[in-house]
Amino acid sequence: MNAYQDLVDRHEEIALLQSCSSLLSWDQETHLPPKGVAYRAKQRAAFQERAHALKTADDIEVWLDTCQGAALDERASANVREWRHAYERARKIPTRLIGKLEEASSLAVAAWEKARAEGAFASFRPHLETLLDLKREMADHWGFAESPYDALLEEYERGATSAQLQALFAELKPPLVDLVDAATARTKASPARSLQGHYPVEAQQAFNWHVCQAFGFDGAAGRIDTTTHPFCSRLAPYDTRLTTRYDESDFTSSLFGVLHETGHGLYEQGLCQDEFALPSGTAVSLGIHESQSRLWENQIGRSRAFWEHWLPEAKQHFSSLADWTVDDMTHAVNQAHLSFIRVEADEVTYDLHIMVRFEIEKSLIEGALTVAEIPEAWNALFYEMTGLRVANDAEGCLQDIHWSLGAFGYFPTYSLGNVNAAQLYAAALKQVSGLESDLAQGRYTRLLEWLHQKIHHHGSCHLPGALMEQATGRATEPKDYLAHLRARYVTA
Amino acid sequence: MNAYQDLVDRHEEIALLQSCSSLLSWDQETHLPPKGVAYRAKQRAAFQERAHALKTADDIEVWLDTCQGAALDERASANVREWRHAYERARKIPTRLIGKLEEASSLAVAAWEKARAEGAFASFRPHLETLLDLKREMADHWGFAESPYDALLEEYERGATSAQLQALFAELKPPLVDLVDAATARTKASPARSLQGHYPVEAQQAFNWHVCQAFGFDGAAGRIDTTTHPFCSRLAPYDTRLTTRYDESDFTSSLFGVLHETGHGLYEQGLCQDEFALPSGTAVSLGIHESQSRLWENQIGRSRAFWEHWLPEAKQHFSSLADWTVDDMTHAVNQAHLSFIRVEADEVTYDLHIMVRFEIEKSLIEGALTVAEIPEAWNALFYEMTGLRVANDAEGCLQDIHWSLGAFGYFPTYSLGNVNAAQLYAAALKQVSGLESDLAQGRYTRLLEWLHQKIHHHGSCHLPGALMEQATGRATEPKDYLAHLRARYVTA
Repeated sequence: MNAYQDLVDRHEEIALLQSCSSLLSWDQETHLPPKGVAYRAKQRAAFQERAHALKTADDIEVWLDTCQGAALDERASANVREWRHAYERARKIPTRLIGKLEEASSLAVAAWEKARAEGAFASFRPHLETLLDLKREMADHWGFAESPYDALLEEYERGATSAQLQALFAELKPPLVDLVDAATARTKASPARSLQGHYPVEAQQAFNWHVCQAFGFDGAAGRIDTTTHPFCSRLAPYDTRLTTRYDESDFTSSLFGVLHETGHGLYEQGLCQDEFALPSGTAVSLGIHESQSRLWENQIGRSRAFWEHWLPEAKQHFSSLADWTVDDMTHAVNQAHLSFIRVEADEVTYDLHIMVRFEIEKSLIEGALTVAEIPEAWNALFYEMTGLRVANDAEGCLQDIHWSLGAFGYFPTYSLGNVNAAQLYAAALKQVSGLESDLAQGRYTRLLEWLHQKIHHHGSCHLPGALMEQATGRATEPKDYLAHLRARYVTA
Repeated sequence: MNAYQDLVDRHEEIALLQSCSSLLSWDQETHLPPKGVAYRAKQRAAFQERAHALKTADDIEVWLDTCQGAALDERASANVREWRHAYERARKIPTRLIGKLEEASSLAVAAWEKARAEGAFASFRPHLETLLDLKREMADHWGFAESPYDALLEEYERGATSAQLQALFAELKPPLVDLVDAATARTKASPARSLQGHYPVEAQQAFNWHVCQAFGFDGAAGRIDTTTHPFCSRLAPYDTRLTTRYDESDFTSSLFGVLHETGHGLYEQGLCQDEFALPSGTAVSLGIHESQSRLWENQIGRSRAFWEHWLPEAKQHFSSLADWTVDDMTHAVNQAHLSFIRVEADEVTYDLHIMVRFEIEKSLIEGALTVAEIPEAWNALFYEMTGLRVANDAEGCLQDIHWSLGAFGYFPTYSLGNVNAAQLYAAALKQVSGLESDLAQGRYTRLLEWLHQKIHHHGSCHLPGALMEQATGRATEPKDYLAHLRARYVTA
């Protein structure tokens, strides 16, 4: 199949450019000196433009057409399907727009960092307006059946629509709100010991790195660095980098951050590294990606079994934990509190934060809300959901990096991830016998192997919905998730 | 001038590629996980190929010819001159040869690391033979008047010839040998206090960073990281990165490393950042670059005036220095010892190491010496120079990475740097009144400003020889350098 090989070669060229682009981004978050930002924006714009030109060249269509009737194996067929989807979407976007968006978002990230530090939305506003205009223009180019938001969502969650998400949130919200009431009341009634103490950064790094590798993360093919906003990025085959941030008064802040990013990292490392350039070797969607991070962070990391195994080692690193019991610790990391910051929110209240963002960004994209109105709308909606009043935009609408990256349609994938994580973990418990005793002994190989087989090795061969059905026998639904929250926070 | 603008645009495209390439290299030295090395090699090869294609495209010649008769200002004329020089050199080398050299040198570096670890030259020999053949072939393609070594030297020191270098070394050697005798005898007769103590890495980092910025390094346009082999790299405009390594038992190891790289960094930051892509905004040669690093490291950093200002602050960082006086410190950092390893050699004995390498690599390139004869020739010459017998090639001909990279003609630029540094500093002392009292007060602005005007701002507008004449009124000659060494190590 010459045409298929031509497509592989072209996508390897594109992947090479994108891998450099990923390094430019990673470096910008971790190391770039402040004055280097302007030229970095130029570099990234140039790469995006070049990659876009390669992705949209006419010859791809010729090759795709030639492949159409050919006998290809399952992975190759999936690659052709995904290439065509990506090609058709990419062709709809003028190259000029890609470069503009890349440059605007590089500048916006820097502006957001400054605005957040100062709690001053006004200085970020023009950047966000530019980005919103560009993204709405892109949605128009892509086209959509119901909402322009769907066109953007497709970028992160292949095959999903805002109508589906609205239905999911509608099903989730009422029982979740009840759960939040019950769980927060219970936390108030039986407060946990305070974790406040002194946990030196070096000790946190050593402990985190040990747990991360025990989960199965290959330390020779990855690393952990420090950033304001934690993330995971596979820059290239065998080069998957996690980041976290440290609070010396509470080690669980960086630990759960690392467990979360490790979940992402295990997915990236579990993909076929030789297919780095191909859909079959690439993560399928953010909702699936987030299911991996949340599974390791919450289903595993906040379980009693986890602390049975790891508390003794944690005590070796942190003298503040000397007289802590497994019960103390399990109780402490399973508290439910309404709070302002999404990334610090507990499992129970987390999705309320997402619902606020989903509603606001959907309104922005659909033109029902302007950028200038965001702070007021955010604060009102947040109050309605949580009863908390935002006093400073830094703990309100400025807290997340996503919009400064032009990432509208990204937030709901976090909730999808929560729901998928619970559903996958429930399925693993049924399908892998003895899994619970593995976990209490700090053994993660069989769980990871199950995730490899059910999720990771498939790359983007199946759409997210189909992948969930194959793995769990059901489409994504909030049942297992609500049961998990109820069991852990209300009836446990 | 359309043709001139076309040349600018093309070289901005090339510079953007090269800036990404520089990030790929920097990241490889500082952060890349071990398993990521193979793909990184692919990325770098792809960039190099693309840059070479852009540099050697026919249209450049057309634009250059069009510019030939045009009225251009001084900087633009210099750019056209340098572009033509680079274009003609690049066009003479078949692309095939570039690929071969890249492949041979990546194999050779790995072989060299192994050979050095084992002290076994024999396993490195075939690799070095291949590299030598390829570099001699390149010299033939480039062409030369007297020696093929000149063609290689041109890559590092524009306009220099081996005849000039031989004359310089012939003038330098006899008085230097006498100086080494006198200085080492004096060190033996009056040994300094030992610096051995406990200097925590964090304290070294804080102190180094403070001195580095006090010299004038813009911390918002650069940073310091940790690597096995220290270096300085300007990745992009306003993004100049230094590296060092730490020895917790002796803070001067990282300090002088940082002062050295800061000298390189001040040159890179002193270039016109808007002309990043142009010869007029690019460092002119390694001999000039090294003059900047050696000036700040040795002329400034090892002076009594430096320690008068900085010892009190060093004591705040390092309790081991509690009872040290300025005399103790000045004495301790100005010791002369004959030793085996170039990168650890002191100011006085350093050039003996270079003379050994220059003589050997010149003979290799000219065909007067074979690779198999290197160890014997090295050891004999080293004994003649220093009276020391090399017992293991790891501390002899295998100690440096340069030849395994195919970098023949690089070593003599270190000595050129030493000589130029002393000559520039002597000129600055004459031309800038009150400079010495500035330095004793930790004020470096006027020295840096002088270097900006005399060296940095000119980029590659003048060839290195002309630049030295303009700055100091004389061509490069060892007089000031010998006077400096004599004053500091013999008569002080």
